[in-house]
Amino acid sequence: MTPPPSAKQKILDSALTIIRAKGYEATTVEDLCQAAGVTKGAFFHHFTSKEDLAVAAAEHWSGVTGELFRLAPYHRHDDPLDRVLGYLDFRKALIRGTLPEFTCLVGTMVQETFGTHPAIREASRKSLVGNAEALVQDIDLAKKKYAPGAAWTSRSLALHTQAVIQGAFILSKACDDPGVAMDTIDHLRRYLECCFKDPNNG
Amino acid sequence: MTPPPSAKQKILDSALTIIRAKGYEATTVEDLCQAAGVTKGAFFHHFTSKEDLAVAAAEHWSGVTGELFRLAPYHRHDDPLDRVLGYLDFRKALIRGTLPEFTCLVGTMVQETFGTHPAIREASRKSLVGNAEALVQDIDLAKKKYAPGAAWTSRSLALHTQAVIQGAFILSKACDDPGVAMDTIDHLRRYLECCFKDPNNG
Repeated sequence: MTPPPSAKQKILDSALTIIRAKGYEATTVEDLCQAAGVTKGAFFHHFTSKEDLAVAAAEHWSGVTGELFRLAPYHRHDDPLDRVLGYLDFRKALIRGTLPEFTCLVGTMVQETFGTHPAIREASRKSLVGNAEALVQDIDLAKKKYAPGAAWTSRSLALHTQAVIQGAFILSKACDDPGVAMDTIDHLRRYLECCFKDPNNG
Repeated sequence: MTPPPSAKQKILDSALTIIRAKGYEATTVEDLCQAAGVTKGAFFHHFTSKEDLAVAAAEHWSGVTGELFRLAPYHRHDDPLDRVLGYLDFRKALIRGTLPEFTCLVGTMVQETFGTHPAIREASRKSLVGNAEALVQDIDLAKKKYAPGAAWTSRSLALHTQAVIQGAFILSKACDDPGVAMDTIDHLRRYLECCFKDPNNG
């Protein structure tokens, strides 16, 4: 049997939900305590401040999403390009439910805190870049196989992939339409096919 | 001689600077009054609330950036594809100075307010989609000329372009590095070249 979640765990899980729904600054310690069903005393036992919680939430987010991607079925493909394109198909399949359910905690937090909370920015950078870096090995193998002479680097293409997905979330939020994010991932998939299949890149 | 800016104009200009630096929620009416050199009375003479100011700031942003793009040199190219690629080169050239100077007011605001301030979301949508729509005519002309049978629509490609640029700003904020945004625009340019020049799309 799984043990019941600790107070700390419940606060971190609530942070993922609430901050994605209304942003970092608008989220109060009271909101988090109420959603987690804990006292303010419990909150400050585990976190020195809301900023401290946000940094821990970014690490929690990296853990949760890292596990999700690590266990995803696209890794089973033999061909590295199929794994890279499978990653995009998986990202597209994750776009379901409400906007706060499928958009990104750290992309949301860094947008408003980059200049005012260096610790949150750094935690967000680690999470965003870490997610992108998990793709680099497969992009590198696909590049060696299909586009050995291409001008772009595998790391740069991985970061671009992350940027496009973050931008897709912004457009979806503005239009209140998950379809806009899906369309953008379709364009990104077409770009990756072009990167690896255009003979001029080979 | 240009007349001196009105109190309203000064508040709107301050909003562009301050909200891009620290987000909508963290920006206070006091911050805006202090930066604009106006009293709270003057603020509430022109705006009923901070939300009302944010909606007006989004419209002001559309006006300022709309004028910038309308007067940009890329429109002089005879070929529609050169104009589309010239737009991207212009966007890349705008990435200079500090992060709040080159990132996007409405992309920043909508990220945190999409679920809590419907009026700000709608104003942000108008600005983001309006900027993208200004590209549709040239994309359409380029499509007719170079890729008449392509599966994507001109509007979808224009929205994708906007999404990628917004995502580029998020990665730049996270990494505190304008170069990441520039790299992502280079990838986007390569994608557009692929869209219009790949014989499989023709």
